[in-house]
Amino acid sequence: MADRGAYDLEQIKAILDANQVCHAAYVKDGEPRIIPTLYMRRGEHVYLHGNRQAALLRHLGSGELGCVSVVSLDGVVVARSGFHCSMNYHSVVVIGRGELVGADEHEEVLDAFVRILVPGHEKQVRSATRQELNATAVVRIPIDEASAKIRSGPPIDAEGDLNSDVWAGVIPLISQVLDPISAPDLKAGIEVPDYIRDYPGRH
Amino acid sequence: MADRGAYDLEQIKAILDANQVCHAAYVKDGEPRIIPTLYMRRGEHVYLHGNRQAALLRHLGSGELGCVSVVSLDGVVVARSGFHCSMNYHSVVVIGRGELVGADEHEEVLDAFVRILVPGHEKQVRSATRQELNATAVVRIPIDEASAKIRSGPPIDAEGDLNSDVWAGVIPLISQVLDPISAPDLKAGIEVPDYIRDYPGRH
Repeated sequence: MADRGAYDLEQIKAILDANQVCHAAYVKDGEPRIIPTLYMRRGEHVYLHGNRQAALLRHLGSGELGCVSVVSLDGVVVARSGFHCSMNYHSVVVIGRGELVGADEHEEVLDAFVRILVPGHEKQVRSATRQELNATAVVRIPIDEASAKIRSGPPIDAEGDLNSDVWAGVIPLISQVLDPISAPDLKAGIEVPDYIRDYPGRH
Repeated sequence: MADRGAYDLEQIKAILDANQVCHAAYVKDGEPRIIPTLYMRRGEHVYLHGNRQAALLRHLGSGELGCVSVVSLDGVVVARSGFHCSMNYHSVVVIGRGELVGADEHEEVLDAFVRILVPGHEKQVRSATRQELNATAVVRIPIDEASAKIRSGPPIDAEGDLNSDVWAGVIPLISQVLDPISAPDLKAGIEVPDYIRDYPGRH
């Protein structure tokens, strides 16, 4: 479709850095498996984390091939024909062999995951306990086999439809955050901190 | 994590019906492949469509196993420890053998895809041409092997952290649409129709 194609590594990193949730796929006994999960980009790798027993992490952690896809939806493309209706989006797919992250980087990456999810919160929370670190696995996939696809701009209609009386255009989509909701068991007197109030409107 | 688990078929259908974009995975020469794509639910199947030459559609159309995952993000769960930070979400995974949709249902499903993407627009656009129909493949996967996962509500912190001075709670996320942008080559005098102006704020 229109405007799509492969982009360079900087473009791929920019799309990865603008999102927090990916879908990760792996092969189990010859069958496809897929799961949505948090991720982060660091250097030339995509990092995933989770329960050490989780199938995704066991498969990728043992060096198997994984495939990670990230997409952000930017708008609905309304064309004069059904055939040319589409969506505007930024997406990246990374394919690579997983690798378990060693003890030297493990805790640092877990802290970075907190920062990616809630910037500023990583400075507030206590350190992870030994038990928490042991329960969690971190794997990474190199970004060297990766591609980006982007569709942007108005619909591209067939020449013969341009005189149509049907409306055409784009309905932009955005993600927004609403006011934070304090936990019901929050200790009395704790105010919503600035880094929560200023949470970026993207996701 | 908290509140997650398997849900019944009606719950699975409700999550599928509340979204338009999935990630679909398949296996190519033993390797995982994944791609974001539009989908719709109809009866007990998930339908995908696209260019007849696309690898996903060729694989699923020849009866191979596919895996479809849908997730909507509802909020960022901010816990008193990094370990318990998470996201609130609704998600569904469907695994099943693909099947090419026959000529009897092909055009009807393509029309339904327009309705799913832009409700009301399917009544305005011209019929698909023979060439457009031939260029497009529709495949479906049965929903009988499917599961839903939902996380909702406040963070569930460790007992020992409940007296912490760190703020905890949820930052709700929503998707919204902005004002529609008419195509630059739109015929003069065409107003934005009500069904575009009233486009639901979900995605």
